Amino acid sequence: MSTSKQPYFPPGTAYVDGDYLPLSEARLPILDWGFLHGDATYDVVHVWKGRFFRLDAHFDRFFRNVDRMHLEMELDRDGLAAILAECVRRSGLEDAFVEMICTRGMPAMPSRDPRDAINRVYAFAMPFGWVADEKQREKGLHLRIARSVTRISPHAVDPTVKNYHWLDLIMGLYEAYDQEAENVVLCDEAGNVTEGPGFNLFALIDGRMKTPASGVLEGITRKTAIDLCEMIQLPVDVTTLPADRVRGAQEVFITSTAGGIMPVTVIDDQPVADGEVGETTRRLDGLYWDKHDDPAWSTGVDELRRRHLSHADFRGRPSMSALRTP
Amino acid sequence: MSTSKQPYFPPGTAYVDGDYLPLSEARLPILDWGFLHGDATYDVVHVWKGRFFRLDAHFDRFFRNVDRMHLEMELDRDGLAAILAECVRRSGLEDAFVEMICTRGMPAMPSRDPRDAINRVYAFAMPFGWVADEKQREKGLHLRIARSVTRISPHAVDPTVKNYHWLDLIMGLYEAYDQEAENVVLCDEAGNVTEGPGFNLFALIDGRMKTPASGVLEGITRKTAIDLCEMIQLPVDVTTLPADRVRGAQEVFITSTAGGIMPVTVIDDQPVADGEVGETTRRLDGLYWDKHDDPAWSTGVDELRRRHLSHADFRGRPSMSALRTP
Repeated sequence: MSTSKQPYFPPGTAYVDGDYLPLSEARLPILDWGFLHGDATYDVVHVWKGRFFRLDAHFDRFFRNVDRMHLEMELDRDGLAAILAECVRRSGLEDAFVEMICTRGMPAMPSRDPRDAINRVYAFAMPFGWVADEKQREKGLHLRIARSVTRISPHAVDPTVKNYHWLDLIMGLYEAYDQEAENVVLCDEAGNVTEGPGFNLFALIDGRMKTPASGVLEGITRKTAIDLCEMIQLPVDVTTLPADRVRGAQEVFITSTAGGIMPVTVIDDQPVADGEVGETTRRLDGLYWDKHDDPAWSTGVDELRRRHLSHADFRGRPSMSALRTP
Repeated sequence: MSTSKQPYFPPGTAYVDGDYLPLSEARLPILDWGFLHGDATYDVVHVWKGRFFRLDAHFDRFFRNVDRMHLEMELDRDGLAAILAECVRRSGLEDAFVEMICTRGMPAMPSRDPRDAINRVYAFAMPFGWVADEKQREKGLHLRIARSVTRISPHAVDPTVKNYHWLDLIMGLYEAYDQEAENVVLCDEAGNVTEGPGFNLFALIDGRMKTPASGVLEGITRKTAIDLCEMIQLPVDVTTLPADRVRGAQEVFITSTAGGIMPVTVIDDQPVADGEVGETTRRLDGLYWDKHDDPAWSTGVDELRRRHLSHADFRGRPSMSALRTP
């Protein structure tokens, strides 16, 4: 950190307290327990060339997680879809991350009881970004398997409920940087690989694709990679994955909404196989991006707005007001 | 949650981006990684009858934790003390919580690398609050020892670095409420008691006071309770504490900046000993509050401001501007 630097606020549009505003002006109350207790769940869907990718899968997960955390939202899927589409439209972005957040909020009276809280919804669209930069995607990432820290156990915090508890991942990143690696993956206490900051991991071992079964977020891009493996008739094992098996894999890649399917070619200073980006990884990556204009997996931003508008007209839903022009 | 309810904003004063403002107006950018990644450390000191209690101990911990998290603050102890004292002064509160927060902040350019972040400091003073309400302090708390969730392991997130990763504690609270208990304490994966939401736990067993050694925040009130036990020549073991030993204890209490030393008289629907608040607990609680005007352990809010002002005059420190009158 340097005293002379100013934070960079990316362009984009946020939805806060029923209003749309520039992302740079989007704030949450410091007292929101979503901040003070990390008591929130969220999801991030991406828009590519004006189309949401697998929004239904993200919604399935997000609404399930809101329920699991005993949170309540007044918005249904149509209402939330309208807000997300409106954030994207106002941002003018063709390629975007779109984040939806439900926080515990604040109580209606002095209280420490989460049941007294008025839950809050935030959303924003910002420019699409990548876990791996262009050079890393071309030559493959250098990944560290962390030694100094383990992933938060699913007995403590359910990783399938997407959450902001990233301190283990952040401390793992610092370990990786110390070792000249570019990113990190954490193991569980038994030494099985789990996940990294914002991504799942896959390893091609003995001709079968393997990815950790537990202790991880069930990523939508992870799900997509599994679907694509099945499409090309490559067997997939969702299983336990000891760190040493990953080190000895034929190919390794990571998956994230922030970039899709991205190759890993160095682990802990040692090349993965011959150290080149694997053929299967490249093939899956190509298929992944090909799927982005398939109507079965994607929905146009304008189409989503129009669909909701007519739905809103018919039913007179209150979320109509959210669609007023700026 | 109810649609008609409005959040309650307690009175108080916050410090954000170099300005003092009413706590109800204090916001942080939605993009602050302190929120989006829970990437922050904090501390809470209390003011009682116009005096900070053990501020030095809180500062020792907070500044150490800022370092451990690879965070940087431009403020030193004097500068931060001045800000906290000013928050209290402006709030007009005689009894207050005073929270200091250092977040990762936001990067100076598009980046996912925490090393690129410009770290941020927030602080606020709000009315003093209690983990246990008046009735619970009088008759003793009904505590649940959680079964459905374990505390985040110290191998994943160091609990001595005070942090906002509370989802395990929150889910534990919901389990407690389901069982008609009022609060919860979590165990580690081996079944040893750790801590609850914002408090440490003590149990008097075979005439010795015991409190968990690891997997817990090293609370300042915990430290104070240990000091007070030593003052009254009661032996203290900082040790592992199996849940069953706690259930069979003579006395149990919890400690927190939010209320001091508070009795537990029911655990998992069973009374602790005879179910009455224990004599040792009452004695320690009395001693705890007696210590609040001892100059060795407390500092007047005005004294702290004056001390810093003269220090600032002498050295011409930039934090002078923070002390301008409203």
